[in-house]
Amino acid sequence: MDLFRKTLNQIIDGIEHLDAGWHEKARQRTGRLVMPSRALGRLHDISERLCAIRQTTHPAITPKAVVVMAGDHGVVSDGVSAYPQEVTGEMIKTFINGGAGINVMARHVAAEIRVVDMGVIPEIDPQQLDAGDRLIVHKIAKGTANLSRGPAMTRVDAETAILTGFEVAADLFDKGIQLLGTGDMGIGNTTSSAAIGAVVTGCNLKEMVGRGTGLDDEGLQRKIDVIQRAIAINRPDPTDGLDILSKIGGFEIGGIAGCILAGAFYKRPVVIDGFISTAGALIAGVLSPQSTAYLFAGHCSEEPGHRYMLEHLELTPILDLGMRLGEGTGGALAMGIMEAAIKIFTEMQTFEEAGVTDKEK
Amino acid sequence: MDLFRKTLNQIIDGIEHLDAGWHEKARQRTGRLVMPSRALGRLHDISERLCAIRQTTHPAITPKAVVVMAGDHGVVSDGVSAYPQEVTGEMIKTFINGGAGINVMARHVAAEIRVVDMGVIPEIDPQQLDAGDRLIVHKIAKGTANLSRGPAMTRVDAETAILTGFEVAADLFDKGIQLLGTGDMGIGNTTSSAAIGAVVTGCNLKEMVGRGTGLDDEGLQRKIDVIQRAIAINRPDPTDGLDILSKIGGFEIGGIAGCILAGAFYKRPVVIDGFISTAGALIAGVLSPQSTAYLFAGHCSEEPGHRYMLEHLELTPILDLGMRLGEGTGGALAMGIMEAAIKIFTEMQTFEEAGVTDKEK
Repeated sequence: MDLFRKTLNQIIDGIEHLDAGWHEKARQRTGRLVMPSRALGRLHDISERLCAIRQTTHPAITPKAVVVMAGDHGVVSDGVSAYPQEVTGEMIKTFINGGAGINVMARHVAAEIRVVDMGVIPEIDPQQLDAGDRLIVHKIAKGTANLSRGPAMTRVDAETAILTGFEVAADLFDKGIQLLGTGDMGIGNTTSSAAIGAVVTGCNLKEMVGRGTGLDDEGLQRKIDVIQRAIAINRPDPTDGLDILSKIGGFEIGGIAGCILAGAFYKRPVVIDGFISTAGALIAGVLSPQSTAYLFAGHCSEEPGHRYMLEHLELTPILDLGMRLGEGTGGALAMGIMEAAIKIFTEMQTFEEAGVTDKEK
Repeated sequence: MDLFRKTLNQIIDGIEHLDAGWHEKARQRTGRLVMPSRALGRLHDISERLCAIRQTTHPAITPKAVVVMAGDHGVVSDGVSAYPQEVTGEMIKTFINGGAGINVMARHVAAEIRVVDMGVIPEIDPQQLDAGDRLIVHKIAKGTANLSRGPAMTRVDAETAILTGFEVAADLFDKGIQLLGTGDMGIGNTTSSAAIGAVVTGCNLKEMVGRGTGLDDEGLQRKIDVIQRAIAINRPDPTDGLDILSKIGGFEIGGIAGCILAGAFYKRPVVIDGFISTAGALIAGVLSPQSTAYLFAGHCSEEPGHRYMLEHLELTPILDLGMRLGEGTGGALAMGIMEAAIKIFTEMQTFEEAGVTDKEK
């Protein structure tokens, strides 16, 4: 794998369309498996797309990893979150000591975790936390600027965030990771994500904005007002991914977009989590529309705008369990379903192998 | 565990209401976990109900087993299936040699398999198949009678089918199985299941009857006509589970109902699969309405009537992936989600343990 540093344009130019030939070869095998035609429904869609992405009918899905991108948000000072800002940094420590939701989920599906400080406010010292290679510090700044007063970050910082995510993912792929999940941590990041969702999908804010970690009615209205102001002041260009990210994004959202572009560039499947990861996918999709073909939507979040984002990307979520935690939990849980899909594809006998009478065709 | 043979009435009398006290204790622990309130949605409902069923806040979920109940159906001679009847027996051999969908799924979630010949037409010899304890022969008859001409089986055979299922499950629980999945094999059994669904839920046949393994439009209309005739001739009493099972059921459906009653009787969780398993749950629910509290619906089948059955039982399916294979595949796949739910409940840190700032309450 060529890990020389790439420019964003080189990355975008290097992303190819999904391989239709391998997709068709995979469909043919599914049709011979010992069951009524495509009787395991969307599991076949998953396994066949994995074949097309990896250009093989024996795609590996292990080892797996989840990258949790963390960043703080200046907009928190406008009262858009039910939790205080210091929770972002505190949760990084919980990710490292193994007690958070994503740790449990990642262990359940045998995925490694990488936590990336893309720009949280506190200083995070990997050595002090005894974090080993689980924590990567790429602090772009100590939190974004308040997007309701002007751009959240410079255009250069936005590009750096994406390239950083790209390199973190590329490094994992280079080490053999076959399936990558994206996750997020950042108090305030549903505000930024809802703003991105509204700009890219064109949905109105009433549909796109939800209660995040648990706002009351008054907080929800305040959040809508803040996002309205952010869009009015910044006027992000919906056709320019870097413009959107710099004006109303977050460092962790840029990092997630970079991971997604890396999956598409290196032809590895990436499974996104919920609302914030999908905001990253929207940015990646504006930069490279074909990047979405390499993506799987782990679940549909309880955050109401999420389904509009997924519809825009034409992604069908694997799970729909009313989850809204983030951290990568929904994507990690879906990895188990994706693994089952591949096992069905590769381990199930054909009618011929099983000696079972097929239906007359 | 008291394994002396029980009568159906003793079983029904022995099924208790779910324990509300343990349910509440479990909810309290969920509320302290380091995340916004109930942010993993339905995973909490699953883990809390598992606590209530097992009357502990540390419910085990392994070892697991899937019981695949197999039976043949006289109604196949009316042309209600896209596959020939010999497939039932052939698939039993595939289950034993490990090449079927349920084998792959069961391996994926580390569940044992038990295949039960409840009444298939061919002679099945466990020794010849080198089946070990994976195959149990309790052949009630060589297939049911044609339910479109009269009762599918006698009332005594219906009771025997249920008690057989109960004993198979009781034996597995006695050997330590903590989570039981139900599955089915039987060409023609979506016809019987749709008839049961229509009688118990009161839905009309247009809603309840689907294409099963792949009927065309003409076959679908024929299947609807057959079921209409079966109900008109047999007039099953919707309040009498044995009457329904004997007149329009199948041996494997009775066996599944028995597994479900055993879960409720011995307070062990049972996860049902799709259309046929849910017909078994409807029979169990008519016999003992509180049995449903010990049940989990693994998935929502592509067979259109399934969602009406689940609504009638007030069960929310864990997965919804357009699957329609049966064999127990959907229930087995959902076991992985249930296991994740329990791990979240038991392994995730509380706010206090993690040292993370909670939201002001």
